[in-house]
Amino acid sequence: MTTTPRYDLSTENLDRAIARLSEALGADAVLAAPERVAEFHDPYEGEGATEFQPSFVVQPASVEEVQAVLRIATELRIPVWTSSVGRNFGYGGSAPVVSGSIVLSLRRMNRVLEISESGAYAVIEPGVRFFDLHEAIKASGAKLWMSVPDLGWGSVTGNALEHGFGSTVHGDHASAVHGMEVVLASGEVVRTGFGAASGSADGLWHRHRRGFGPSLDSLFFQSNFGVVTKIGLWLMPEPETFVSGWLAVQSEEDLAPVVDALRPLVLDGTIQGLPLMMSALGTPGVPPGDPSGEASLSILPLPVRYLIRYSFYDRAPLAEARSAIVREALAGLPVHVDERRYRGDAAQEDVDPIDWLPGGIPNMKMIEDLQAVAGEGYAHIDFSAVIPFDGASAREHEAMIREVLGEAGLTGAFAWITNSRTLVGILMITFDVNDPAQAARAREVAKTLAHRAAARGWYEYRAHPSLIDDVVKHFDFGDHSLYRTYGLIKDALDPAGILSPGNHGIWPSGAGAS
Amino acid sequence: MTTTPRYDLSTENLDRAIARLSEALGADAVLAAPERVAEFHDPYEGEGATEFQPSFVVQPASVEEVQAVLRIATELRIPVWTSSVGRNFGYGGSAPVVSGSIVLSLRRMNRVLEISESGAYAVIEPGVRFFDLHEAIKASGAKLWMSVPDLGWGSVTGNALEHGFGSTVHGDHASAVHGMEVVLASGEVVRTGFGAASGSADGLWHRHRRGFGPSLDSLFFQSNFGVVTKIGLWLMPEPETFVSGWLAVQSEEDLAPVVDALRPLVLDGTIQGLPLMMSALGTPGVPPGDPSGEASLSILPLPVRYLIRYSFYDRAPLAEARSAIVREALAGLPVHVDERRYRGDAAQEDVDPIDWLPGGIPNMKMIEDLQAVAGEGYAHIDFSAVIPFDGASAREHEAMIREVLGEAGLTGAFAWITNSRTLVGILMITFDVNDPAQAARAREVAKTLAHRAAARGWYEYRAHPSLIDDVVKHFDFGDHSLYRTYGLIKDALDPAGILSPGNHGIWPSGAGAS
Repeated sequence: MTTTPRYDLSTENLDRAIARLSEALGADAVLAAPERVAEFHDPYEGEGATEFQPSFVVQPASVEEVQAVLRIATELRIPVWTSSVGRNFGYGGSAPVVSGSIVLSLRRMNRVLEISESGAYAVIEPGVRFFDLHEAIKASGAKLWMSVPDLGWGSVTGNALEHGFGSTVHGDHASAVHGMEVVLASGEVVRTGFGAASGSADGLWHRHRRGFGPSLDSLFFQSNFGVVTKIGLWLMPEPETFVSGWLAVQSEEDLAPVVDALRPLVLDGTIQGLPLMMSALGTPGVPPGDPSGEASLSILPLPVRYLIRYSFYDRAPLAEARSAIVREALAGLPVHVDERRYRGDAAQEDVDPIDWLPGGIPNMKMIEDLQAVAGEGYAHIDFSAVIPFDGASAREHEAMIREVLGEAGLTGAFAWITNSRTLVGILMITFDVNDPAQAARAREVAKTLAHRAAARGWYEYRAHPSLIDDVVKHFDFGDHSLYRTYGLIKDALDPAGILSPGNHGIWPSGAGAS
Repeated sequence: MTTTPRYDLSTENLDRAIARLSEALGADAVLAAPERVAEFHDPYEGEGATEFQPSFVVQPASVEEVQAVLRIATELRIPVWTSSVGRNFGYGGSAPVVSGSIVLSLRRMNRVLEISESGAYAVIEPGVRFFDLHEAIKASGAKLWMSVPDLGWGSVTGNALEHGFGSTVHGDHASAVHGMEVVLASGEVVRTGFGAASGSADGLWHRHRRGFGPSLDSLFFQSNFGVVTKIGLWLMPEPETFVSGWLAVQSEEDLAPVVDALRPLVLDGTIQGLPLMMSALGTPGVPPGDPSGEASLSILPLPVRYLIRYSFYDRAPLAEARSAIVREALAGLPVHVDERRYRGDAAQEDVDPIDWLPGGIPNMKMIEDLQAVAGEGYAHIDFSAVIPFDGASAREHEAMIREVLGEAGLTGAFAWITNSRTLVGILMITFDVNDPAQAARAREVAKTLAHRAAARGWYEYRAHPSLIDDVVKHFDFGDHSLYRTYGLIKDALDPAGILSPGNHGIWPSGAGAS
């Protein structure tokens, strides 16, 4: 039996696609020259990379243009890899799993469509960056706060769709999304929740968590079932008081009791938002095998082994009560507590730059700090496992990372984001992009860590394309029934299999791994 | 062209199904005698009902038996209608959309599989009632609280899957579900999130909000894509203090300013959980057209027009600070504030019965109260619209209901559940099940209200089977693209179309409305 190959990635066909897309969207919407496509590669792939190679880039400016792209890609049998802004460098930037894919970049769809102060939400397109939304909120005068990840240059939508995190009460960015518009591979435009009712009252689409019938929103996170063209994002009312608390822990032995003391405070909401626990382990410039803890975490002028950031966003008397409870819970533990208190309406220049992230102010400080230490050629690949929220697991997690980094002679920046019941450990494994051997070792370290974490029952919450298979192979319950189910949905919503094949290990039937 | 009809609901085929299922699961798993099937009908359908009629009932006791049921139903082309415990009487109990469906009752799958104090979650089967889970938590000694709806006799899982509400911080029951096991129509058993990794560490499946790749959990709420056989349910740590606050509002004119004063307090989390705002409008025994407000809401011995319940679950100093903030926000408004404070570990007998619901204690008080007023033959059909959270919308909503109830000469119990950005108005339209003309009028009122609500952009969050079409027809964006998408998923996950066809308006292709 002969079958037509699913995709046609021949030069002739790609040239045809360039012509067709240029005709449909205008020549300026298509970037085909290698120097223009360069920034849509994995920024840390190094010289001579052969995997995860985009062919060219198309940048629609509207829903209709997204529909046109999908129509043409389906017709020509060329996969498209959706990228909002493409700034998640540790996870590969805009690099597609299937080499030859067209990058469908949504950078030009960058409108803030609505900011509702009474409903405390914004409606945005995927090209809107954290910087853009922050500016739009300020310009609108609405007393609302957003949550930001470490770097403000990325897409708000893209970060949320990848299950990214920030620090404020909506710091679990995926959970802040309520109501979306999606273009399916067929070109069908779907609005979820009450957005499906065209007569829907003011904001109901984004105010209410779901509509009538099953909520489809979560289907379009970490997947390839559609192209998200609008989201509703819940925002936080500007708090009366913002308190940024910093705990300094001096030695490795002291971590577990502090983590165990924080757990009930996070679980019952005394501590708001998502605290961050930074480890000095593997910080660039610090010998990875050095367990002494005499590392200087650049963010504070203290010789500390761990720095833990927490925050309160509240009316003043509540914030004060929270502060007293935290101090009491930590009393007697080997930890130094430092809190800074701000008015919620403080101007950015009145907030200490190290409090910008918990203060919901987008910035680029982290990358500047890291580059300053690591120097030219700074690159990283990330390993991000989820573990139960307890001190013993945290220690074991860090010991595992130290061992593997030490074996490879590499460094990295490591921190846990705390959810109510889990810790998400983010390790940015550092390498010099100009040193191919070191880069290869860093990638190997990520795989080794994925393997060793799985032996402990821990798995990644997101992954670089080169790591996906190492994560997914452990999802084996029912002979891999979850991924078989993803496949059924994939085939139903994208029968031609053109949308981001291989994203998070989801493939159309018959396509197989590349 | 001739096609095989999708279903074979002939007597011979149903008899064959009874025999096959009795053989596979044991005779006691099949209830076919009319007097045994009676309680799986709509309890308020009245004499001579012809729609929404179950044929017989099968009660599997294990996942394997669910698989066997689906295999046999697929083979014999008979639809099965999943029902956890079947106590949502205002929405039809266990009554299927397609008459002749077998009721797949999960009452015998009633194990509490795990209660984790450190992770603050439980793992339960769908037959576990609120009473059962409460008892299991107490018996385990774990210091955890659950959220309960008005009546404690229903299924925890069923209520969550139908987007039901309670009062505590996990009172949005659907949002408390993390990680589930589902049997697809094919018999495939799927575990979502990190449950898909069979080696997953202690509780990771239920501790973390999602896994790697898209979360499928929400697909199985208010749908017919699978049979949920286990859920992880987040619980609240036992609070140090539980405060139940009651606001009494004397007249209709006073509602809007109070609602508008509460909105920011709910939005910023000063008020925890989901406050309930009860209206005296239409309370059984009260003339529906009487706007004077001299109704006695049975729950408090005050002549009030509205009673608003809110609560704090917190450490004592935080609860005190919250209380002061609420009083200050309401100062000057025409509202009487009454708060009762309990220790979180208070025994049930030390909690005033009217505070049992916000106190997470399952009970049957509401139905007893309503039956006491409404008498023998008490029945209701529910109309439950979602509106923006603001005073003007609330007033308009209530006026609409008063007008339609008044036109029909009917009464009902009406209250709003407050989410952070919306109000969900629950109207239980009261009728005498032994008065067919009144019953018909009540059903007509529900349809009229659905129609008039839609004209204002408001839609129901759940509905009696007889109302589904009146809700779904308004979901018209993109020529009904959301429902077309539901249909694609339905066909992919249940190609034979045997699982609860018509649930929330979702049909397999080619089946059409019954």
